[in-house]
Amino acid sequence: MKANPISPTIPLDAEGVHHGHLRLPYSRDDSAWGSVMIPICIVRNGSGPTALLTGGNHGDEYEGPLALFDLARSLDARALSGTVIVVPAMNYPAFRVGTRTSPIDKNNMNRSFPGKSDGTVTQKIADYFHRELLPRADIVLDFHSGGKTLDFLPFCAGHLLPDKAQEAKVFAAVRAFGAPWSMQMTEIDAVGMYDTAAEEMGKVFVTTELGGGGTSRAETVRIARRGVDNLLKHAGILRGAPEILPTRWLEMPDGCFCFAEEDGMIETTVDLGEKVEAGSVVARIWPIGRTGSEPHEIKANISGILVARHFPGLVQSGDCASVVATMAD
Amino acid sequence: MKANPISPTIPLDAEGVHHGHLRLPYSRDDSAWGSVMIPICIVRNGSGPTALLTGGNHGDEYEGPLALFDLARSLDARALSGTVIVVPAMNYPAFRVGTRTSPIDKNNMNRSFPGKSDGTVTQKIADYFHRELLPRADIVLDFHSGGKTLDFLPFCAGHLLPDKAQEAKVFAAVRAFGAPWSMQMTEIDAVGMYDTAAEEMGKVFVTTELGGGGTSRAETVRIARRGVDNLLKHAGILRGAPEILPTRWLEMPDGCFCFAEEDGMIETTVDLGEKVEAGSVVARIWPIGRTGSEPHEIKANISGILVARHFPGLVQSGDCASVVATMAD
Amino acid sequence: MKANPISPTIPLDAEGVHHGHLRLPYSRDDSAWGSVMIPICIVRNGSGPTALLTGGNHGDEYEGPLALFDLARSLDARALSGTVIVVPAMNYPAFRVGTRTSPIDKNNMNRSFPGKSDGTVTQKIADYFHRELLPRADIVLDFHSGGKTLDFLPFCAGHLLPDKAQEAKVFAAVRAFGAPWSMQMTEIDAVGMYDTAAEEMGKVFVTTELGGGGTSRAETVRIARRGVDNLLKHAGILRGAPEILPTRWLEMPDGCFCFAEEDGMIETTVDLGEKVEAGSVVARIWPIGRTGSEPHEIKANISGILVARHFPGLVQSGDCASVVATMAD
Amino acid sequence: MKANPISPTIPLDAEGVHHGHLRLPYSRDDSAWGSVMIPICIVRNGSGPTALLTGGNHGDEYEGPLALFDLARSLDARALSGTVIVVPAMNYPAFRVGTRTSPIDKNNMNRSFPGKSDGTVTQKIADYFHRELLPRADIVLDFHSGGKTLDFLPFCAGHLLPDKAQEAKVFAAVRAFGAPWSMQMTEIDAVGMYDTAAEEMGKVFVTTELGGGGTSRAETVRIARRGVDNLLKHAGILRGAPEILPTRWLEMPDGCFCFAEEDGMIETTVDLGEKVEAGSVVARIWPIGRTGSEPHEIKANISGILVARHFPGLVQSGDCASVVATMAD
Amino acid sequence: MKANPISPTIPLDAEGVHHGHLRLPYSRDDSAWGSVMIPICIVRNGSGPTALLTGGNHGDEYEGPLALFDLARSLDARALSGTVIVVPAMNYPAFRVGTRTSPIDKNNMNRSFPGKSDGTVTQKIADYFHRELLPRADIVLDFHSGGKTLDFLPFCAGHLLPDKAQEAKVFAAVRAFGAPWSMQMTEIDAVGMYDTAAEEMGKVFVTTELGGGGTSRAETVRIARRGVDNLLKHAGILRGAPEILPTRWLEMPDGCFCFAEEDGMIETTVDLGEKVEAGSVVARIWPIGRTGSEPHEIKANISGILVARHFPGLVQSGDCASVVATMAD
Amino acid sequence: MKANPISPTIPLDAEGVHHGHLRLPYSRDDSAWGSVMIPICIVRNGSGPTALLTGGNHGDEYEGPLALFDLARSLDARALSGTVIVVPAMNYPAFRVGTRTSPIDKNNMNRSFPGKSDGTVTQKIADYFHRELLPRADIVLDFHSGGKTLDFLPFCAGHLLPDKAQEAKVFAAVRAFGAPWSMQMTEIDAVGMYDTAAEEMGKVFVTTELGGGGTSRAETVRIARRGVDNLLKHAGILRGAPEILPTRWLEMPDGCFCFAEEDGMIETTVDLGEKVEAGSVVARIWPIGRTGSEPHEIKANISGILVARHFPGLVQSGDCASVVATMAD
Repeated sequence: MKANPISPTIPLDAEGVHHGHLRLPYSRDDSAWGSVMIPICIVRNGSGPTALLTGGNHGDEYEGPLALFDLARSLDARALSGTVIVVPAMNYPAFRVGTRTSPIDKNNMNRSFPGKSDGTVTQKIADYFHRELLPRADIVLDFHSGGKTLDFLPFCAGHLLPDKAQEAKVFAAVRAFGAPWSMQMTEIDAVGMYDTAAEEMGKVFVTTELGGGGTSRAETVRIARRGVDNLLKHAGILRGAPEILPTRWLEMPDGCFCFAEEDGMIETTVDLGEKVEAGSVVARIWPIGRTGSEPHEIKANISGILVARHFPGLVQSGDCASVVATMAD
Repeated sequence: MKANPISPTIPLDAEGVHHGHLRLPYSRDDSAWGSVMIPICIVRNGSGPTALLTGGNHGDEYEGPLALFDLARSLDARALSGTVIVVPAMNYPAFRVGTRTSPIDKNNMNRSFPGKSDGTVTQKIADYFHRELLPRADIVLDFHSGGKTLDFLPFCAGHLLPDKAQEAKVFAAVRAFGAPWSMQMTEIDAVGMYDTAAEEMGKVFVTTELGGGGTSRAETVRIARRGVDNLLKHAGILRGAPEILPTRWLEMPDGCFCFAEEDGMIETTVDLGEKVEAGSVVARIWPIGRTGSEPHEIKANISGILVARHFPGLVQSGDCASVVATMAD
Repeated sequence: MKANPISPTIPLDAEGVHHGHLRLPYSRDDSAWGSVMIPICIVRNGSGPTALLTGGNHGDEYEGPLALFDLARSLDARALSGTVIVVPAMNYPAFRVGTRTSPIDKNNMNRSFPGKSDGTVTQKIADYFHRELLPRADIVLDFHSGGKTLDFLPFCAGHLLPDKAQEAKVFAAVRAFGAPWSMQMTEIDAVGMYDTAAEEMGKVFVTTELGGGGTSRAETVRIARRGVDNLLKHAGILRGAPEILPTRWLEMPDGCFCFAEEDGMIETTVDLGEKVEAGSVVARIWPIGRTGSEPHEIKANISGILVARHFPGLVQSGDCASVVATMAD
Repeated sequence: MKANPISPTIPLDAEGVHHGHLRLPYSRDDSAWGSVMIPICIVRNGSGPTALLTGGNHGDEYEGPLALFDLARSLDARALSGTVIVVPAMNYPAFRVGTRTSPIDKNNMNRSFPGKSDGTVTQKIADYFHRELLPRADIVLDFHSGGKTLDFLPFCAGHLLPDKAQEAKVFAAVRAFGAPWSMQMTEIDAVGMYDTAAEEMGKVFVTTELGGGGTSRAETVRIARRGVDNLLKHAGILRGAPEILPTRWLEMPDGCFCFAEEDGMIETTVDLGEKVEAGSVVARIWPIGRTGSEPHEIKANISGILVARHFPGLVQSGDCASVVATMAD
Repeated sequence: MKANPISPTIPLDAEGVHHGHLRLPYSRDDSAWGSVMIPICIVRNGSGPTALLTGGNHGDEYEGPLALFDLARSLDARALSGTVIVVPAMNYPAFRVGTRTSPIDKNNMNRSFPGKSDGTVTQKIADYFHRELLPRADIVLDFHSGGKTLDFLPFCAGHLLPDKAQEAKVFAAVRAFGAPWSMQMTEIDAVGMYDTAAEEMGKVFVTTELGGGGTSRAETVRIARRGVDNLLKHAGILRGAPEILPTRWLEMPDGCFCFAEEDGMIETTVDLGEKVEAGSVVARIWPIGRTGSEPHEIKANISGILVARHFPGLVQSGDCASVVATMAD
Repeated sequence: MKANPISPTIPLDAEGVHHGHLRLPYSRDDSAWGSVMIPICIVRNGSGPTALLTGGNHGDEYEGPLALFDLARSLDARALSGTVIVVPAMNYPAFRVGTRTSPIDKNNMNRSFPGKSDGTVTQKIADYFHRELLPRADIVLDFHSGGKTLDFLPFCAGHLLPDKAQEAKVFAAVRAFGAPWSMQMTEIDAVGMYDTAAEEMGKVFVTTELGGGGTSRAETVRIARRGVDNLLKHAGILRGAPEILPTRWLEMPDGCFCFAEEDGMIETTVDLGEKVEAGSVVARIWPIGRTGSEPHEIKANISGILVARHFPGLVQSGDCASVVATMAD
């Protein structure tokens, strides 16, 4: 197995506050001896547990990076017992240009695990997390939002897992995060995910969807900031007790997804958080080439509430138009 | 003065419902004898007044096109006294690909008036509106939203005009539209605008900003549909009375705009519709290349409420970060 | 072996006429939860043999898609005994934009077999054909033409195969197709081809080259329509007898290909179907940067007739300029 | 009026054979002090009339450049009485990359006359022809074909002109050219054309459409070569008599053009040169997103024969699908 | 005449040191209310003369921006009598991406004068310099180098002018600058240049060529820093006397330019500053498609020394390959 | 193991001078049956040793291709005892467009060894060298320079090798080459290099860095020409003795590399070949968005002389800014 080419510019296991980069050599037409420089901050105080906090797994999602750049700037080692590893923009090449996938290799970081040390840039980053950072962690928080093309009701989420003891720890952590909504997720296709890689190592892995559209709002950033603070307290790394907040639990059963089968202009006829009846229209797709045509209707398969939707005004056949979730509590 | 090369595929002045296109010959590498085809619908019943209804002046704004494609599909000539000209996507080349400006000439339609019959594609379209469509209209409604890079509190707006009788008619129409917010606008630079071209012909010109982000919501589309219906009733073209709804009046005084002077990740610390004090922070810009740096703060020049904001998570020096308006009622 | 991620929106084995899509999830910057949607039509009546009919293996070839969209629209299940699977545009992403290879991964579908369930988009489609559709088929017809950069004399073709019984069935099917010309092909490099994948499963595999240039003609579309009708009758799936038409048999011996060794403007000095003597000039390449230079001459290696040629007016060193075939009957 | 920045590297008015370039300074990112170099050949023997022969007015049309590079290479000054100016690729930047319009400014050379000496690259070239080359000419032959997106029945053409003496000379020259078909053209929009610029100077201006699709055929190149030879003999510049060949005269009356109003895959149901009845289907446009839909039909407005058609397999709303001409003799 | 849309964020005429921007509103697809922000620094102490110092007129030339960002950072108002206006990157959009011309409109800033207030972004910037900054200046220094595609022997230059008193002041200033070489330039085409605009207002205009290749060297940056310091002292704005350095005077007579007439790989056979004999080879152009071909030779028209050369390894027909200057002292 | 698809158009092992191509089939959108054509020249006279001489491993480095096209043109078989294989542009697709990596697959040829016969275009070329050309060679010379983004002091180099006998032969060959500087290199990451592939076969492998910036100078080309001549004489292939020239030996110890950690405009404060003290500033990075900021300083880790530097005026975080080497003799 080839060594991973990334070298950190700071020590990974030293006491105190360290700001630096993961430097990945990347030779290219516009820099023969260039590198990808992924910002990293490690704060350590003694031998307590380790939290690995990540944002920018997809480069167009902002609540995580905002909360984590802020956290990295303000964390005081003396307030901790243990270690906090902060990587606010995992897929830094994507984050730098504001795209979901890497502009270098078009790879989706969250389908690139466990990575390859001699693969593409994204695969090399995944491999480094898999070999070096994940093994150090006890608890992992990976921030997501909908990005430029989806919008979500803000929730924190964990996966249903075969190991029920591990699952219980995950949902306790989700509860501690304290988002307005909490989701019990089953992934249809979990292959290649960062989540899966962490879970298979037995880590407590918590994720979020906190909004979307390629932007953030003051409100969703507040949820993110409070959530990471709560989680570090819940894990016993940051002193103090988490702020207990009400949350509603959701599930995504079969039939929750509605797909477009036409190209056109989309009209979402229900807003996020509104109730939906099975068989009712959740979106219309309007042909744009001429006036006078009827729109195509997209109907919900199940009853529940709208938790996610296609964001841009134009839609293509095959795009997910809407997601309807059901209450789990 | 050269003739405008656009030919409509339907009669402009005939009774009944007509769906067709404005055909603009456009020779290019991928179609030597191609054309731009702008959808148009004209519904006429007798000699009443004429409304010109337009969307897609900027191609990434959706409330207008959604309301107008729907209106064009459903208008019954028998319900009218007068004429309704509907062009749901004025800058159709831009609308087709979901961009603010035309992908053909990068022109901003709303700075291309009065147009040029032998200019670029966008200038030719502007010239056609200026010569053929605007002169036919008594009242003009041009829908806007924030597009992909701005987000607005939903409002209907008219301009302060030198002719106070004309201005009074405009604000009466804005009032009839019935948006949650109404704006009295003074443009800093009104040269080249569709608005100005119409106003200089003495038309009653009404515009909107109904949201943004390159999407629409069920709620903002409802505002648009109700607004156009109200306006046609107010103008006496559609039978019935406008639905009277509460609105709050706003103004945009000097100092309302805040500009970024750094590149980075933007955090809007106030949400749309929230109160702002002069001197308070409305946004922060975070350097993204390393952790541990302080963000740059953007502060409001005046007190009021936040009516518009930069939308994408990344920002560039020179971008408008926030707009603060004051209550006018 | 990972499961293929494609899910069909119609049943693959039900009676009657079914129009739908092969939906392949494809996450990307402009649609986080998007999909590739490949149109498919399956018509089944009872337990007779199954024909798999495909076009758009290369996305810039049109006789196949035209004949197959028409067939799918008009097939009456009651006229069949057996099953017809129609995929008019195998490499739908390429077909949608009119390019030979996929705009997503630049893969040539016809060099991507047997495919990979966790590979690129094109490899996933190939894998689905290999695992799900090819095994269902008794006879396979894959339409090709020259595409944007080659032009062919219209022929139907089969490969010389090690299993002579299989080969005989193939050439009987080619004969039944009834194109003006018929070709006995030996591929120089058959690795990765759809043809090879099907033949190795023992299927009767028939292909065509029916013109080219990235267009179609009324005449070549008639050949395609009649050919598919004849083939379904020959296979006993469609009732009635194939229309017997004269054909001339061709071979492509060693030396049939002529390659350009210069960049420039190409002049094909012989038209398709015309006779060629070994050593005679079949094309000239003109330097374009100045007048007064002599053209480079390309000479035939063998005598025969011109069956294919480079199509665009410009040529690059390494392009195949001409193909000369010999009569086999 | 600013001087045109083009300088020829050969004398324009000297005796003998001269090969060189029109050098147009063009500063750009990849060459601060670069130039556009347009090949030109001038052959002069004494004081006879002057022919200006041009190809590559559109950069994706090849019969003209092939005939003219060949002519320039082989013209013997002693065979002439007068002057032949040969510019095989007028819009050389477009010709170099095989596109209709210039890759530099996207201008259509044939809508750029009379040009501008301080305009774009294409406008500067047009200005040079208008000021320097056209005034020297008695007769002008400008070769066209359909380019990558149209295909034509091969014809030579002249315009109906207000000056009937000039028109008679034009049609005599068209007759002498000796193409299989000859066209009497009235342009709908003649503004900006090279043709118009020449005709307004009183020149005998002859043009062609000799095929298309972005390629050439041996047959169409033979027509071009023979045509230019015949024309130079007809003009008394080249010794000998034109080869008299049969031709059929055509006209393009109102209603000759059929436009697409849908996007899709086009099927031309009639081939070039075939008869068409008014009201009969000349093309179908197939929706490509799903099977089972009916195609849109395009019907001829007039009876006649098909003289031109859209070439690529895909078509967009607004493209010219077909041109039907009527017999004029 | 429309007002120029640029607004400075600092006062243009106030005492002391002011750092800010020229803000030019620029609406575009990725920022509806965006701006171009051109850094500017103004240092004023009392009523002495005004120097306008500019770099980045072309965005890929670095000696000027390096010297001027450094000067702006370190200028102490108390050391001055008069005003220094520093714009280190005139064409900031080009400078930001390292290209000669603006990525927005592809305009060459140095052929855009006197500019247009309602033109393209580059024309608007030129107009602002023409209307607001140039009129304030007594002496103007505009730094140039060869950029990415040319390399120069380092020289300071002035133009031969019709007003000999003005010319004398210019050459005195060039002399004071103190570059190793000094050039008396006559422009072939001075239309649209910043230089010309300034000279026509009667300003003392000094320019440079200090290297090239899209880079800088420690040595050439030293020349730039010392030059600007000397010039400010010479103008009486900065206290102290210029450092007197030896220089050699050059001229660019007719025939100084050698142009490539072929595409290929260029070999410059003489280095900058070396002697050249008329008729000797200064460069060879090698065909790259095959081995065994002879290179094309480019020969000097005049004797002198090599002062400039094409920089990249590949060359196109029409590129300036070499410039030979003669000694003027 | 699949056969490599490359076929040479000349015999690899025949006596005399042969110019031709390595033809690699490459099907793509703009040429369905296209090929990559890599120029090759083989000169053989009898059974002496074989030298494999390569340039254009990176497509933006010119000293090697210039020396080798010239050598191929002029080599006389009678002057040899043995064989010279010349491939002046290994990565021909990259060389053709002047980029470091291949425009087809973005692969760095010098990290693609040992290659893959069914991989990307670059991997197929590497595989061909690995299987066919390297095994034939006794001595290998691979020319490099800095390319567009680096600049080097001109040196010839060999690697420190585990086999000291092989190493001694390498350094003897480096000595014979006769560059002004000679380098003893240890690669940090030698995986995938052409060098490593050759060395592992036991070949005497010599390489160079002869300048950079994407250009060449007369002086560096002279070094290359003399070096290859010397090397062939040293190897006993070309008759005569190498020209003995002084050289200085260098080493690259730990700490030799300095990396940028900021984006901005770079000022290299030391020129190539100048002395550097550990801790002294070798470069500054200037923020470009506003005046008045301090530059970031990059300091040398070790004392020595500057042997390489970042070339373009703009720099990105992660780019190698400077390389300091120490004297080894």
